Amino acid sequence: MEQTKTVTIGNKGKGVRSDCQISLELLNSGGITIELVSKVNALYGKSIRKGVEEILEFFEIKNAKVVIDDSGALPFVVAARLEAAVKKLIKTDKEFLFPFLGQNNYQTEKDKNRISRLYLPGNTPSLMINAGIHHPDGIILDLEDAVAPDKKFEAGFLVRNALRNLDFYGAERMVRINQVPQGLKDLDFIVPHNVNLLLIPKCESAEQIHLVNKRIDEIKATCKITGNIWLMPIIESALGVIKAYEVATAAENVVALAIGLEDYTADLGVRRTAEATESFFARSMVVNACKAAGIQAIDSVFSDVADMDGLKQNVLRSKALGFDGMGCIHPRQIKVLHDNFAPDDVEIAKAKKIVNAFMEAKEKGLGVVSLGTKMIDAPVVKRAQKTINLAISTGKISKNWREEDNEKI
Amino acid sequence: MEQTKTVTIGNKGKGVRSDCQISLELLNSGGITIELVSKVNALYGKSIRKGVEEILEFFEIKNAKVVIDDSGALPFVVAARLEAAVKKLIKTDKEFLFPFLGQNNYQTEKDKNRISRLYLPGNTPSLMINAGIHHPDGIILDLEDAVAPDKKFEAGFLVRNALRNLDFYGAERMVRINQVPQGLKDLDFIVPHNVNLLLIPKCESAEQIHLVNKRIDEIKATCKITGNIWLMPIIESALGVIKAYEVATAAENVVALAIGLEDYTADLGVRRTAEATESFFARSMVVNACKAAGIQAIDSVFSDVADMDGLKQNVLRSKALGFDGMGCIHPRQIKVLHDNFAPDDVEIAKAKKIVNAFMEAKEKGLGVVSLGTKMIDAPVVKRAQKTINLAISTGKISKNWREEDNEKI
Amino acid sequence: MEQTKTVTIGNKGKGVRSDCQISLELLNSGGITIELVSKVNALYGKSIRKGVEEILEFFEIKNAKVVIDDSGALPFVVAARLEAAVKKLIKTDKEFLFPFLGQNNYQTEKDKNRISRLYLPGNTPSLMINAGIHHPDGIILDLEDAVAPDKKFEAGFLVRNALRNLDFYGAERMVRINQVPQGLKDLDFIVPHNVNLLLIPKCESAEQIHLVNKRIDEIKATCKITGNIWLMPIIESALGVIKAYEVATAAENVVALAIGLEDYTADLGVRRTAEATESFFARSMVVNACKAAGIQAIDSVFSDVADMDGLKQNVLRSKALGFDGMGCIHPRQIKVLHDNFAPDDVEIAKAKKIVNAFMEAKEKGLGVVSLGTKMIDAPVVKRAQKTINLAISTGKISKNWREEDNEKI
Repeated sequence: MEQTKTVTIGNKGKGVRSDCQISLELLNSGGITIELVSKVNALYGKSIRKGVEEILEFFEIKNAKVVIDDSGALPFVVAARLEAAVKKLIKTDKEFLFPFLGQNNYQTEKDKNRISRLYLPGNTPSLMINAGIHHPDGIILDLEDAVAPDKKFEAGFLVRNALRNLDFYGAERMVRINQVPQGLKDLDFIVPHNVNLLLIPKCESAEQIHLVNKRIDEIKATCKITGNIWLMPIIESALGVIKAYEVATAAENVVALAIGLEDYTADLGVRRTAEATESFFARSMVVNACKAAGIQAIDSVFSDVADMDGLKQNVLRSKALGFDGMGCIHPRQIKVLHDNFAPDDVEIAKAKKIVNAFMEAKEKGLGVVSLGTKMIDAPVVKRAQKTINLAISTGKISKNWREEDNEKI
Repeated sequence: MEQTKTVTIGNKGKGVRSDCQISLELLNSGGITIELVSKVNALYGKSIRKGVEEILEFFEIKNAKVVIDDSGALPFVVAARLEAAVKKLIKTDKEFLFPFLGQNNYQTEKDKNRISRLYLPGNTPSLMINAGIHHPDGIILDLEDAVAPDKKFEAGFLVRNALRNLDFYGAERMVRINQVPQGLKDLDFIVPHNVNLLLIPKCESAEQIHLVNKRIDEIKATCKITGNIWLMPIIESALGVIKAYEVATAAENVVALAIGLEDYTADLGVRRTAEATESFFARSMVVNACKAAGIQAIDSVFSDVADMDGLKQNVLRSKALGFDGMGCIHPRQIKVLHDNFAPDDVEIAKAKKIVNAFMEAKEKGLGVVSLGTKMIDAPVVKRAQKTINLAISTGKISKNWREEDNEKI
Repeated sequence: MEQTKTVTIGNKGKGVRSDCQISLELLNSGGITIELVSKVNALYGKSIRKGVEEILEFFEIKNAKVVIDDSGALPFVVAARLEAAVKKLIKTDKEFLFPFLGQNNYQTEKDKNRISRLYLPGNTPSLMINAGIHHPDGIILDLEDAVAPDKKFEAGFLVRNALRNLDFYGAERMVRINQVPQGLKDLDFIVPHNVNLLLIPKCESAEQIHLVNKRIDEIKATCKITGNIWLMPIIESALGVIKAYEVATAAENVVALAIGLEDYTADLGVRRTAEATESFFARSMVVNACKAAGIQAIDSVFSDVADMDGLKQNVLRSKALGFDGMGCIHPRQIKVLHDNFAPDDVEIAKAKKIVNAFMEAKEKGLGVVSLGTKMIDAPVVKRAQKTINLAISTGKISKNWREEDNEKI
């Protein structure tokens, strides 16, 4: 704990929305003084003041001066800012938590669709609000590269509160922690609050995965949590590429590897190009490692948010190499990903044939499935079923395609 | 053994040739009744009936009704069908074998040419007859994907009899067994009958090779067989690609790895394209593993049997990457493979220079061979000699090229 | 030692310059006779004779006939030739060494620039003289492929003397030894004479590196040498490619891997093409192994010394894949390498930003460096600094770029 008695947390100024900046000064006497600057003062001023008083009381702070520059922060944001400020000044294990939002209380399947996952900077509330309405497969609250070093401390509280009180609209709830081992201490803010998946950046060994899982298990035991927490290590170095298969098979809860080409090309000392020859080997290694491990392969984000056609071409190339999804840095990228990672007509027709053969064999009580002379083994059926599910979830075919196809005949 | 007393084995109907379908019903009395439908009844009817009686007697069956629908089956085919029928109904360790065909009794060299090897479905006699006259380097009797699941049982007997009584015209005698461990039981039908090489499909570990070799050794010991049985594992999954070098170096009798791109691209979940970018990494891994292990690298079959130019381009690309041969699914593909995998003029000229330098050094009694300032070490000479041998066997140069070249000077 | 009493060492004839051929016949009586044929007889004849007498006396040879065919050999060349002749005929541990040239007495840094390194055949004095004036980053005296097998013995003495008495003009002093284990005996000629870096050809295992280092350590201990001797293993086989990471991390003094595509493509049995598709996988494996190990990646030489534009394209492709340098077989290639491996404007601008951010953070006493929201960690700063250093050393920017850039603002 720092010895200073005054601290400032959060953001204010031009372009800042849905956030607030809070300065907290601990005093020896004089009770609580709150100075509030807010455009919504008339409407919410009273409620904000009440919230601040409540939190200070919770942390047993009796004398303090609080200056709040508010740009429309929701209560969970104000609370996160104030708690961060308090914890910069006093040592306490208490956490101020609003009740967990009911609709956030879900688990995800190991092999659910992960075509799109939207990165949100972990310390920027304005981008979080309503992110879920774009329906990405996953939403990532990022504690790593999208948070400036001097903002890492406060971001932990904001991400924790967002996990509890931001509506994710059913998207898989993801957090990117900082690089292991430093990132291990992020887990205290994340694990107890029903996170579905953790992204592990700059991953280069199974050992890093084991360290994460060890800490997760400790926290789960302490908090009596039983749900699955999936891991998506990010391969973004030459060493990571060499260790891709080791990482992919490091633990049962590793559900995908992502590749991070910005850092990978920097590690190689090369320029990242559109043709991506410089990363062809790395992408092949990661895809192959993932498929060998039976998990998903996720491609790097596409940085130029204005170039929709470039994104589409990128998606088609990704899919052609075997990737199952990609990161997004802007909501407008989500639809392009879903449209183009979705199975195309040829793939759907092939998958239908296999699933039909399987269903018919099942209906006839046959032990084996065959298409022509070729026996169809269980993994092939599973893969075809996955294609069908993907086609349904991306709106390419109806849920009742079998019945509808039969009617057409 | 099934409890039913009637069973039907083999094929009949439109398009079926050189085969027969046999229904066998075991009876408690009444002796042997044979009903024969055959276009060649007039010519061979008597002989077929005699054959059937002989086989039933061999298996000590005294009362039975046999219905044969014949479309020109050779005796070894009829015998295979009938034995399969018998063994569906009664338990016996006896095998009905015709004498082994003398001209099939040869061994092959570890590093013999394997440019072309023709796949033949293991349960389709019509494709087997005369396959050898196209002179592929190898003929594969396929027990795996080319045999429907419910035909696997009978195919074993047919392949066994074909190994003994079908003329292979000097082609390397190969069988593709089913995936290990299930495929291990195929070995009983194969190993005792002078097979030269076994293809091991969907290979993903050295352990699978060890299991095959263990069972081969057991059968060889029982049958007192001493000849070499070479192995050609097929890499056709992402995991197989990762383990390619492990598999290539698993045992001394592994002489080549083949790659199977139909299954590999399915495992990756990608479409197989003509440019084959999606499998470039896998093909590179397999070629590199093979050359590092000092064995041959064999490319995937080309499926479009009508597209001869596409095949040629495919062969040239295969060769340029380091493959030594390829599978065929139609005899007409054989010549294209031999013409284009054969060394070209530049390669032949270079190889001649090296072999000449070696021969001259030998004639002069020199311990080392050099070309210009560069010492030519033994592997380089061996490789050049291989190129020359390949050029001779594919008809590009004469066996007496050295003498002929000298005369020209 | 051979039993013959006459031996001939060195080169003479058309095209031979700066060399001599010496025939030495040991006699039982008659003292020393010297026959000298030299164009520079008038000027240097007396001095050559005196040198020969001195060396024979050093080796205690009292009766001998020496025939010298001189084409302008420097004293260290004559001495190397004569010592080799003597040691073909008598057994002695003595070495005839001129005083070590002062300006050759330098060490090199582990991560110094290695953009260009010029190969010089180890038995061709004419190419050695003045090679340094072209200022390659390194000069390689080659004992391996550039020396004919029957010249290997004498080349050791010439390379040893060149290391002591040839002016390297500050270039990194390199020797390519023969393949391990045979090449281990080359080390006696090299290690005691301040070599900076050894190239280990056809490297395929960490074990080979350990053998080299063991022998280096023995010689260093004997000769009381303390300077670093760096290793640059050359990957030039399929097995080497598989073991690239193992070799790259075999020892602390491995500073780079080079790839040798002439031998690699021969090992694969493929033709080496300009597009280099056949070696894309191998080059990717080597670059990735090097970057994962934190060492430099060095590309194969470009053989067509007349095709300057082809060389430039080759360099740009090399750099785009992550290579840091390349071998040269002609001095004229050096400038093309330096011009095109040098950082371009975009790379320099990016590196300047990072270095500036780092310097500013340092000046402000900040513990962490950030650019925008992204924390810049130490390796990124180090890489940017390396780019800047490279830009300075290749003349792209001034040593005082920071001051000059500030003045412009």
